[in-house]
Amino acid sequence: MVIALNEPLDMHLHLRDERMLEIVAPLSAETFSGALVMPNLVPPVTTKEALVSYRERIVKSAEKRDFTPYMTLFFRSDYTPEFLESVKSDILAIKLYPAGITTNSEGGVEGFELIELGGVLEAMSELQIPLCVHGETGGFVMDREKEFIPIYEKLAKNFPDLKIVMEHITTKSAVEALDRFENLYATITLHHLYITLDDVAGGLLQPHLFCKPIAKRPEDRAALLQAALKAHPKVMFGSDSAPHPREAKEAPGCAAGVFTAPIALQALAQLFERHEALENLQSFVSDNAKRVYGVNPPKKEVILEKSPYLVPEIYEGCVVPMFAGQSLEWRVLSAG
Amino acid sequence: MVIALNEPLDMHLHLRDERMLEIVAPLSAETFSGALVMPNLVPPVTTKEALVSYRERIVKSAEKRDFTPYMTLFFRSDYTPEFLESVKSDILAIKLYPAGITTNSEGGVEGFELIELGGVLEAMSELQIPLCVHGETGGFVMDREKEFIPIYEKLAKNFPDLKIVMEHITTKSAVEALDRFENLYATITLHHLYITLDDVAGGLLQPHLFCKPIAKRPEDRAALLQAALKAHPKVMFGSDSAPHPREAKEAPGCAAGVFTAPIALQALAQLFERHEALENLQSFVSDNAKRVYGVNPPKKEVILEKSPYLVPEIYEGCVVPMFAGQSLEWRVLSAG
Repeated sequence: MVIALNEPLDMHLHLRDERMLEIVAPLSAETFSGALVMPNLVPPVTTKEALVSYRERIVKSAEKRDFTPYMTLFFRSDYTPEFLESVKSDILAIKLYPAGITTNSEGGVEGFELIELGGVLEAMSELQIPLCVHGETGGFVMDREKEFIPIYEKLAKNFPDLKIVMEHITTKSAVEALDRFENLYATITLHHLYITLDDVAGGLLQPHLFCKPIAKRPEDRAALLQAALKAHPKVMFGSDSAPHPREAKEAPGCAAGVFTAPIALQALAQLFERHEALENLQSFVSDNAKRVYGVNPPKKEVILEKSPYLVPEIYEGCVVPMFAGQSLEWRVLSAG
Repeated sequence: MVIALNEPLDMHLHLRDERMLEIVAPLSAETFSGALVMPNLVPPVTTKEALVSYRERIVKSAEKRDFTPYMTLFFRSDYTPEFLESVKSDILAIKLYPAGITTNSEGGVEGFELIELGGVLEAMSELQIPLCVHGETGGFVMDREKEFIPIYEKLAKNFPDLKIVMEHITTKSAVEALDRFENLYATITLHHLYITLDDVAGGLLQPHLFCKPIAKRPEDRAALLQAALKAHPKVMFGSDSAPHPREAKEAPGCAAGVFTAPIALQALAQLFERHEALENLQSFVSDNAKRVYGVNPPKKEVILEKSPYLVPEIYEGCVVPMFAGQSLEWRVLSAG
C-alpha cells in the first residue's frame, strides 16, 4: 500500500540553535514542506534582527530549497503596533508562553494577567497576526490545561478577529472548547495521539516520553484521536518535536520534550491506517494549516509505503527519537 | 527543641538482599526498633526455609541487637492451612501483590481473582495472620488504587476476622475506606505525605521520586496528611523505603521506589512540627503498629533535635535517598 502526502506541514516545531539546529533542521526539511518554528531560544526571539538571523541559520542548516521555516516571535506585552507592523512580513504568528511553564519560557507572561494585555493583542488582531498559546496554568500538572480553558475563552471572546491557536492540546476539555468559538484553533502532536501518562509513568519511568504538557488520561487521548482522525477543520498537525541532547533526557531533572520530527509522517500514517482514516491525513498534516494560516508552502510530494521501518536508536549520537529502535509499519519511499 | 520517640517501627520496608541488604539494613536498624520486611525478592519468599534464611541474613547485616525484622511471606493461592500453621511463628503477616504491579511482583496474584481465594484467606483469618495488600489494579496509573477499593471492601466484608492492611495508601478514597470496615488498616509512607505527581513530573522529571503507587493529587496528599497528623488509630507508618542502585534510578526505564529509611524520622519530625502535631508522632511511628500487630519490639529511645541536618547525596556510593543533599530541620541526636 502506498500513499502520497502533498506539502506536509509541521505547525509547531522546535529547531533550537547551533549544533542541535544543524542536526535536526535537515531531518524536518527532508519530509516537511514547511514548519512553524518556535521562538523559545535563549534569549528568546523578540526582535526583527533576531528573527531574520534565526531564519537564515535555519535555512542554512536545513539545506533544502523546498522547506520553508515560518517564523514566530516570542510574545512580549510591550510590543508596539509600529514594531508589530515592521515585523509582520517576517512572521506567521506570535507565540505566548505563561512564564516558566516549559523549556526556555522564563521570559514569558506571568500568571493570568495575559487577558489584560489588550494593547498588543488588539494590534495583532488588526494586523491579522495569529496568536499561538502554550495554554497551561501553574496548577497541578494534570489540571494545567483544563484550568487554562477559561483564559482561551476570554481571549477568544474579547478578540473575535484574532486567530488563536491552542498549541499541543492534550485534553478533552480543549477539544470541546474548539467548537465554542469561531476563532479558536488547535495543534495536536504525534505523541499525544499515541501515549497517556501510563506510557510515561505507568510502568517503568520513560524520560523520552516526558513532555509538557504532560500526556493525560485515556479519555483525553481518545478525544484528541477523534479530532485528528476526522481532520477537524480547525485542527492542524504540530509535532512539538523538541530535541534535547541524550544526556539531558537520561538524567535526574530530565528536560521536557519528545523528539518526533523525523518519524512523524511514518507514525501518523500507521495511526491513521490502523483507524481506517488515511483519507483524512492530507488535511490533518497540510490542508487545514494552509487554510488556517493562508500559506502556500513549496511543492513537495512525500510517498509513504506500508513496509517496516526501523527507527534509529539515536540521531548523530545526540538525539533519541520517539520509537527509538522500534519498528513502524510505514516508511518514506521518496520526498521531493 | 528536642523530642524522644520510643521504639519507632517501620511497618513496610524493602531491604533487598546481598550487597544492597548490607548497605541498607544497618541504616534502618540505626533508628528503628523493628520493621515489617517485604518478601518480594527474586525468587519471592514463599517457604519456611527462605523466611528463616532471609531473616538470618537481615539480622547479620543489621548488626544491631535492638532491631527486629518482622517477616512477611509472599502470598500464594496454594498455601495449605498446615503450611501456614507451620510458618505462623516465623511471620507477622502475608503480603499480597497483584501480578506485575511493582518491583519483583511478577509471581503475584493475577487480576481480580484474589477475592475468590477463600481457602488461604480463611486459614489466615483462623490463624490470625494479617494480610498486607499492595492494592492497585492494572488500570490507568492515577486510578489504580481507587479502582482497587471495592476489592478491599469485599475482602473486609467476606473475612471480618482477618486484619487487612492497605499498604502505602496514596488516595483520599483509601483514607475514606478505612472507616467503613473495622478490619481495614493502612500504612502511609513518608514520601506520599510530602509529594504529589507535581513533584515527580510537574517540573523537570525526578526519577528519585518515582514510585509505585505513584504520588497522586494535592487533595489526596491532604487526606493522607490529615490521617497521619492525627495518628488515626488504624494508620501506621510504613516507609516503603525501596532502594535501587543509582544507575537503575537514573536511566530510561527507571525503577519505582523512593529510598527514605535513613531520613524518615527526621523528615517526619519536620512535617509533624510544621503542622503542630508533634504530640501524635509517637502513635504514628510506633504505638499504633504495636497495638494493631500486637508486637513488643526491643526497647529503643530515639532523641531528635530541631537543628539542621544535611542529608547525604548518596549512601555507600550506591543508593540516593529522598532529600539528597538538602537540609532537613531535624536531626537524630542519639538512638539506643
